[in-house]
Amino acid sequence: MNELAISLDTKSKVPLYEQIYQYVKQEIQNGRIPNGEKLPSTRSLCRFLEVSRSTVELAYEQLLSEGYIEAEPCRGYFVSELEGLYQLKPQNQKVLDDPDKKCVQYRYDFSPSGVDLKSFPYNVWRKLSKESLMDDRAELFRLGHPQGEWGLRNAISHYLHQARGVNCSPEQIIVGAGNDYLLMLLATVMGQNHKVALENPTYRQAYRLFKNLSYEVCTVDMDAKGMSVSELEKSGADIAFVMPSHQYPLGIVMPIRRRMELLRWAEQEGRYIIEDDYDSEFRYKGKPIPALQGYDNHEKVIYIGTFSKSIAPAIRMSYLVLTPQLLKQYQERSSFLSSTVSRVDQLILQKFIEEGYYERHLNKTRALYKSRHDTLLSALKGIEPVARISGENAGVHLLLTFQGGVREEELISRAEEEGIRVYGLSEYYVAPEPDSPATILLGYANMQEESIRKAIEILRNIWGVPGCESD
Amino acid sequence: MNELAISLDTKSKVPLYEQIYQYVKQEIQNGRIPNGEKLPSTRSLCRFLEVSRSTVELAYEQLLSEGYIEAEPCRGYFVSELEGLYQLKPQNQKVLDDPDKKCVQYRYDFSPSGVDLKSFPYNVWRKLSKESLMDDRAELFRLGHPQGEWGLRNAISHYLHQARGVNCSPEQIIVGAGNDYLLMLLATVMGQNHKVALENPTYRQAYRLFKNLSYEVCTVDMDAKGMSVSELEKSGADIAFVMPSHQYPLGIVMPIRRRMELLRWAEQEGRYIIEDDYDSEFRYKGKPIPALQGYDNHEKVIYIGTFSKSIAPAIRMSYLVLTPQLLKQYQERSSFLSSTVSRVDQLILQKFIEEGYYERHLNKTRALYKSRHDTLLSALKGIEPVARISGENAGVHLLLTFQGGVREEELISRAEEEGIRVYGLSEYYVAPEPDSPATILLGYANMQEESIRKAIEILRNIWGVPGCESD
Repeated sequence: MNELAISLDTKSKVPLYEQIYQYVKQEIQNGRIPNGEKLPSTRSLCRFLEVSRSTVELAYEQLLSEGYIEAEPCRGYFVSELEGLYQLKPQNQKVLDDPDKKCVQYRYDFSPSGVDLKSFPYNVWRKLSKESLMDDRAELFRLGHPQGEWGLRNAISHYLHQARGVNCSPEQIIVGAGNDYLLMLLATVMGQNHKVALENPTYRQAYRLFKNLSYEVCTVDMDAKGMSVSELEKSGADIAFVMPSHQYPLGIVMPIRRRMELLRWAEQEGRYIIEDDYDSEFRYKGKPIPALQGYDNHEKVIYIGTFSKSIAPAIRMSYLVLTPQLLKQYQERSSFLSSTVSRVDQLILQKFIEEGYYERHLNKTRALYKSRHDTLLSALKGIEPVARISGENAGVHLLLTFQGGVREEELISRAEEEGIRVYGLSEYYVAPEPDSPATILLGYANMQEESIRKAIEILRNIWGVPGCESD
Repeated sequence: MNELAISLDTKSKVPLYEQIYQYVKQEIQNGRIPNGEKLPSTRSLCRFLEVSRSTVELAYEQLLSEGYIEAEPCRGYFVSELEGLYQLKPQNQKVLDDPDKKCVQYRYDFSPSGVDLKSFPYNVWRKLSKESLMDDRAELFRLGHPQGEWGLRNAISHYLHQARGVNCSPEQIIVGAGNDYLLMLLATVMGQNHKVALENPTYRQAYRLFKNLSYEVCTVDMDAKGMSVSELEKSGADIAFVMPSHQYPLGIVMPIRRRMELLRWAEQEGRYIIEDDYDSEFRYKGKPIPALQGYDNHEKVIYIGTFSKSIAPAIRMSYLVLTPQLLKQYQERSSFLSSTVSRVDQLILQKFIEEGYYERHLNKTRALYKSRHDTLLSALKGIEPVARISGENAGVHLLLTFQGGVREEELISRAEEEGIRVYGLSEYYVAPEPDSPATILLGYANMQEESIRKAIEILRNIWGVPGCESD
């Protein structure tokens, strides 16, 4: 080949070298310049195209580095052998709308996983965020400690000790982007070949996660005190995943005797308890129940906590407290994994805790949730002939167990017709529980008091609850 | 038991009900109040202690809810049976210093994974962060889409299309907190029973991660064009993890023919290529090499990219581009897993890209790295009799392969004696490579030009490189 008849557009925004590169590349791709063909020299091509030699050199270099052409010393440039059909995939770029935007709107939503976001301390968070992004904090943008920053882990360990009776040093804490991630990480620490027992009903996310991580998973039935330890023993599981402070979804607080039975079960070699303490901050009678971890003398309890409920779900910060043995395993097997939380966010949260904002925020939201809780209970007054209330002493939801043969789906769909979303207990059962009476969960964290009153008034009517004459 | 002789401290900050609760709990724990013992009624105890009845009721309720006592209708309160020994673990809370603070300090550090953080756009990031935290953004603190926010995914897909030739829609993108997490997530999507082939040498983190996830892992040797496809075929692997745009650590750019061979290898049922495109933004000659994914006609390439190199490691945002088939599997198996990135951070990054800051930042850092790159090359002038330079056309490090029998450890330790940290290639080999000559990696992203000149001057002396008379 003597020359390349490229029509260059000198007015185009595309640089000349790129026009040459693009042209030659396409000619090669289309097979118009065959394999093994010698290209014109840079010297001759630049004269022919009336461009500078460096422009042609740049184009050839790009073709060389992508492998379309090859340079042979003293001989020149040759088209590489590109066997087989080869085509650039056609562009199918469109501007697309978010497909998740269309979803059913409810007038009232009693979501049990709601959080009141109006009370999120925006001003404080913004202030702390600004402070954390000062110009001289370049260090903050380097990769941090895989377990999370020491300052934050220190603040969490103090908080856990004071508020939850958890005994741990900052070394044992791993900060991570949510419970799901931390349980995945924990699986890398514990390795394969475990059988995990979960309460039934339970937090389905945890069940699916353990399944997904290829663990053998089983469920253990609950009585009024929580997971049955004799059933647990029979199950053959070596790991028990429990929520002793406030079981989700049943709201059961595990009494001390059951806790001790559970700890005794775990004493056997190789057994562990994972304690998920997801919303123990919210308790309306007396002080919070101390965590199971605080009673553990044999280093058998792995504690997992989150700021999703107590601050906001979207800040994505949770923490794991490992036992000393598992910490050793973590250091050997998994500490090469980078942290999943931005250091800026960690610093904001550390300041939030250390400067007393967290405590104030907890007190504020606890008071708010308590008054919503009280409003809900008072709106439900007189419901007993129809349904029994349970799980109302803690957390941000309660349960209504309906007497008689009414079906859960019917209760839910009748509420839905009125624009009210309520949640059925059956969706939390992992193993089937066929004979249990219809049970509805009512979450109130994200409902204004006025909305609670209005929605419950409608629900009372459609559920046939006698009027509340005592109000 | 008739009464409880509790000496209450009315001046204490501890509420009276809690003093009663603590006292009774300890008496039960110590066995001084035996199992089955009846406690005084609330009425009698409040008279005895001269406190209000509700104070005693609150204390009893707390004991009840923790299971220390039981209420029997019409009979009163009884101490529960707590078999076995049971003791609260003694507190061992100390204020601890960060144990990771003590580490060797170097005068000069040629880290190949460095990033210049002085050029991080603090002002813009702070401005965008402030905008994102406006009071009316309560929505931002709700749990977001598991794949990441639509707006950010849209911005990433446009960027990938324009800058990297990647063909994908926002639906295929998953935003996550770092590559490690995204590879863990990908493992949950692909399931068990895969054999992963990695380049040798490679990014060790990826090797350890696949090992840790219980995959069978093997390495495939490289020639000057990248991973050997015939060796890959022989290995029996069904997943190839490669860095075609700029191999780490060797800096090889895979030519188009090898890319096509690799894509053809992947056409067989069940095979996949994971393309890690970690630092393709930095290229000093010609325009960036398009990603392998853009040439893929059979939906076989999973693309993974990160903002760690191009913005800052600590912001913890990476993204995965799934194939349509794997997206379906993700939706079935793994979409229940919550996102690992805060929505505020996602919004900041989205604005950063959409408002043109990212492009400007990339151009700025590319120019900065280019001048450090040029400074390093010029400081190394005349080194050829002693060592050969390679991998210098892209990325933020280059390699020096030493002639003669000098040992790598010796090169490193002699530099260390002068307070200079350099990195040996052998630590990137996963399978042993016994006969390879000593090779040193020099990263320059986080080194001032003056430091590069001074450090290289010292290294030339200790490595016995002839003086650079041409400067």
